[in-house]
Amino acid sequence: MRKIIFVTGNRGKLREAKDILAAKDIEVIQNNHGYPELQEDELEPIAAYGAKWAADELKMPVMVDDSGLFIHALNGFPGPYSAFVEENLGNQRVLKLMEDETDRRATFKSVIGYCEPGGEPVVFTGTVDGNIAYEERGSGGFGYDPIFEYEGQTFGELGDAVKNTLSHRRRALDKFFDWLD
Amino acid sequence: MRKIIFVTGNRGKLREAKDILAAKDIEVIQNNHGYPELQEDELEPIAAYGAKWAADELKMPVMVDDSGLFIHALNGFPGPYSAFVEENLGNQRVLKLMEDETDRRATFKSVIGYCEPGGEPVVFTGTVDGNIAYEERGSGGFGYDPIFEYEGQTFGELGDAVKNTLSHRRRALDKFFDWLD
Repeated sequence: MRKIIFVTGNRGKLREAKDILAAKDIEVIQNNHGYPELQEDELEPIAAYGAKWAADELKMPVMVDDSGLFIHALNGFPGPYSAFVEENLGNQRVLKLMEDETDRRATFKSVIGYCEPGGEPVVFTGTVDGNIAYEERGSGGFGYDPIFEYEGQTFGELGDAVKNTLSHRRRALDKFFDWLD
Repeated sequence: MRKIIFVTGNRGKLREAKDILAAKDIEVIQNNHGYPELQEDELEPIAAYGAKWAADELKMPVMVDDSGLFIHALNGFPGPYSAFVEENLGNQRVLKLMEDETDRRATFKSVIGYCEPGGEPVVFTGTVDGNIAYEERGSGGFGYDPIFEYEGQTFGELGDAVKNTLSHRRRALDKFFDWLD
């Protein structure tokens, strides 16, 4: 069985990567070492820098995952700072910001960064378009899933098995493993 | 006249540092090179990392300034991501988040990072406590100044000359120049 080291402290991301990659006969091994995350408006340079730093530091090939929710009416907020905003503001306050907005469009984006020690990082981007719901619905997934609607159901309502067939993370991981093969 | 290189792209920060340091007979020279900014919950490691990186890269002693507005009722939001939030959400949306909050307390914080090439960075923190206003008032300063109330007036109303005698940035710069001397 092929193995891949995933540098992350996020249990939601880890669980999804494990589920998605188990179907491809790949074992995901978590590494908790962490890496410097940059402040950038886009996710790609954050994932690239983190993957290179971690590969050089750990002296082994690694993948990282930088993800975010980009809300159109809020100019892409919370975007690269989705984890900080989730933790400190939470979904209710994001819904409050969206209270008077009729443009509900949002894009979930996941960027997988991969690097070998001494090498240059490569990145793979997956996106899924949806809408911000008017209230939290469903208990599946994690983070913003209960307020992100895809074809009428939130990612919280879809359930992890369905979510993992079409999510931003799934799409990014598919690209990554096509490239690896 | 003593000189100090200030690595920043923020014109508001630059203008204030020039005004404050002119009174100390120090000339501030802007450098626009930029540096990697980390995602951290506190400003100190961001300023320390940036100052060291820029000093090593530019091969000269430099200062940087990482500042943020920490709103108590919002668990410190926008904090280290104040520039991104100002640019993408703006003051009106921050006021919307605070609409139903009775705890209006907020802290403005500025961290000056200083480093010489090959050396270790030092940081100096200045803070000022105030309240979030219910609407924007005044046109002085920049960024969150019109919604940050200090003893009844917003930083936007105080005017730059008064603001610069008591601001978070002034307090951090005072500490830095006490240490330099």
